[in-house]
Amino acid sequence: MPTISQKGKMMPASPIRKLVPYAEEAKKRGVKVYHLNIGQPDIETPEVALNAIRNFDEKVVEYSHSAGIQSYREKLVHYYTKHNIHITADEIIIGAGASEAILFAMNSCMDPGDEVIIPEPFYANYNGFAVNSGVNVVPIPSTIETGFALPPIAEFEKAISPKTKAIIICNPNNPTGYLYSKEELEVLREIVLKYDLFLFADEVYREFCYDGKEHFSVMHLEGLDQNVVLIDSVSKRYSACGVRIGAMISKNKELMATAMKFAQARLSPPSFGQVAAEAALETPDSYFVNVLNEYLARRNVVVDAINKIEGAFCPNPEGAFYVVAKLPIDDSDRFCQWLLEDFEYQNRTVMLAPATGFYATKGKGLNEVRISYVLNVEDLTNSMICLNQALKVYPGRTA
Amino acid sequence: MPTISQKGKMMPASPIRKLVPYAEEAKKRGVKVYHLNIGQPDIETPEVALNAIRNFDEKVVEYSHSAGIQSYREKLVHYYTKHNIHITADEIIIGAGASEAILFAMNSCMDPGDEVIIPEPFYANYNGFAVNSGVNVVPIPSTIETGFALPPIAEFEKAISPKTKAIIICNPNNPTGYLYSKEELEVLREIVLKYDLFLFADEVYREFCYDGKEHFSVMHLEGLDQNVVLIDSVSKRYSACGVRIGAMISKNKELMATAMKFAQARLSPPSFGQVAAEAALETPDSYFVNVLNEYLARRNVVVDAINKIEGAFCPNPEGAFYVVAKLPIDDSDRFCQWLLEDFEYQNRTVMLAPATGFYATKGKGLNEVRISYVLNVEDLTNSMICLNQALKVYPGRTA
Repeated sequence: MPTISQKGKMMPASPIRKLVPYAEEAKKRGVKVYHLNIGQPDIETPEVALNAIRNFDEKVVEYSHSAGIQSYREKLVHYYTKHNIHITADEIIIGAGASEAILFAMNSCMDPGDEVIIPEPFYANYNGFAVNSGVNVVPIPSTIETGFALPPIAEFEKAISPKTKAIIICNPNNPTGYLYSKEELEVLREIVLKYDLFLFADEVYREFCYDGKEHFSVMHLEGLDQNVVLIDSVSKRYSACGVRIGAMISKNKELMATAMKFAQARLSPPSFGQVAAEAALETPDSYFVNVLNEYLARRNVVVDAINKIEGAFCPNPEGAFYVVAKLPIDDSDRFCQWLLEDFEYQNRTVMLAPATGFYATKGKGLNEVRISYVLNVEDLTNSMICLNQALKVYPGRTA
Repeated sequence: MPTISQKGKMMPASPIRKLVPYAEEAKKRGVKVYHLNIGQPDIETPEVALNAIRNFDEKVVEYSHSAGIQSYREKLVHYYTKHNIHITADEIIIGAGASEAILFAMNSCMDPGDEVIIPEPFYANYNGFAVNSGVNVVPIPSTIETGFALPPIAEFEKAISPKTKAIIICNPNNPTGYLYSKEELEVLREIVLKYDLFLFADEVYREFCYDGKEHFSVMHLEGLDQNVVLIDSVSKRYSACGVRIGAMISKNKELMATAMKFAQARLSPPSFGQVAAEAALETPDSYFVNVLNEYLARRNVVVDAINKIEGAFCPNPEGAFYVVAKLPIDDSDRFCQWLLEDFEYQNRTVMLAPATGFYATKGKGLNEVRISYVLNVEDLTNSMICLNQALKVYPGRTA
């Protein structure tokens, strides 16, 4: 029997999905499970996007251009202009989700053995993409006490080696919800220029900023045209995770020519998804106003509830739709599994993501969980009641 | 300025697409270009698939299961049963095209530096996927004189090293159209078992067999459950290249568990494409009868025409919708570019794929081109007239 690859053995299992079998068992027992573990919103996809699909009138579903449908990329230019990001259609490669866009970027910029610095906790699948590309993740710590602000410049400098090729940030952040300030990004700019690095910025939650805060993009930083790679996706913006349409954007011509070779090898991004994403650009502003108000209300429910639980703490993040909360527990993996296996309150329980999966440093995140506030206020309220009750009886409670 | 990766530099440009700028220039001059360079058929996608998309009635376009929609995989089981391939839904992972499925398979089975044996000429993007995974392609020669039959076992044995992890075949073959016989596959079986290798079989053209020949799948080989990885796609079957739905299929549980980690990291395959592909399984048999008759007529036009050209030769392939033809030319890259840049006959020209891009061995394929017979009989007839006229005046003609 032939053996599987070392790469395959090293590939991490998804921390978000490994509890799925326990959730299925709970449902079989008749327990209602509130899914706060994944970033799958319940918000409706804009009608204008769905109608474009319903009105699809081509006779043949053809390959698109490997970089994506030209008219879509041209309309995206206008979308970015509205966000004060000035690019051309040639500076965009459409990917099958941000996932494929990150793989294009990693493979184009980094070789096996190269290092990428990422403030932790970070989006767990960056680990998977790094293993996929043979790249080593070098984490630097951000902490719940500062609300997961950007680590000080000294932490970056400690982590930089001759193998360092890039820094990845996610802004607003998944899993922490933290919104990086202009000042923090200026710090990153200095490091990137000083050490001649690529800066990958995953800005898929750009629209989700609260409390009157505005998003500052890496594309607004001066003099970084050759360094910055913007990673984007329509999944969260239009609550259309299944369309699998993302983008890799850069002004570095050599990088884009290289990434195009990877894009051409896989022929093209999904055509239907592009049709929906192109139409979604016509989504009325009122949609976003409503969605933002909804998420804001949800965030407040979660943050207020967590901070009322004895021994628990949660910052008040200003972006995305996640919080990382500190709980009085011994082991978040054990706790999240216990919630599904051994707990119910009024025939309900809650599924959370153990924060351990968002740290590259072993032992971190043991008393933290990520909560996605992707359910409505009533369900979230009930979820928080469940969580509070659970913590009263969890055998591994620490405080 | 940060440097791009070595991997990115090594990544081959698509041989099918590198002539596109010349074709665009020809069109600007008012010349009609017959596209025989790509595998984008003009055949209509089945109505049943398009109607499923037009009737999409979900409110949210959600992520699907990372391995693909359960109901789709269950229906695929029945599709394969009809082809005497017996698998379960758990033995299928849906990918964004065969492209992603091959990447999952390569990454799960092979590490950087490992070797994969492929009879050449072969589907050019295998080169790209190999570079992507850091895997080295070891080509073994198949020749136009034998119609590109499977090379003898001695050629495989010469190529096998301690680094060899897998063999890739494409059956029916792209670019040659060759249909491997049961006897040839039995030879492969022996090699695979003797050296404990994986056998990847790209069978995306399964339905396209002519002259009464039947397709024999690697899944029909005995005792290879742990070795065989079937790569599939709906792109050609239903003329739906843009849906980007393929599959990786194996009975090797450890391999599938490993591939699932790669699948989970990218979250899910395209949802709309899966809806179309699931519905496409209801395509009436009459569709395939008509399509096969059409392709058969096209093949005959091309093969007859080529073999009437002095100094040209083309086997009569029994599958897919490609032929590799030998032409009296000095350099197929130069010839194919010349056709677009410097030639027209009655204001028409033809775009072909130089066969050099389908060989890993430098210098091979210089007097060969790949012709995709994806246009109707009238256009193909005109294309062959163009080609004949072109060869009369091409300055690099050799015979």
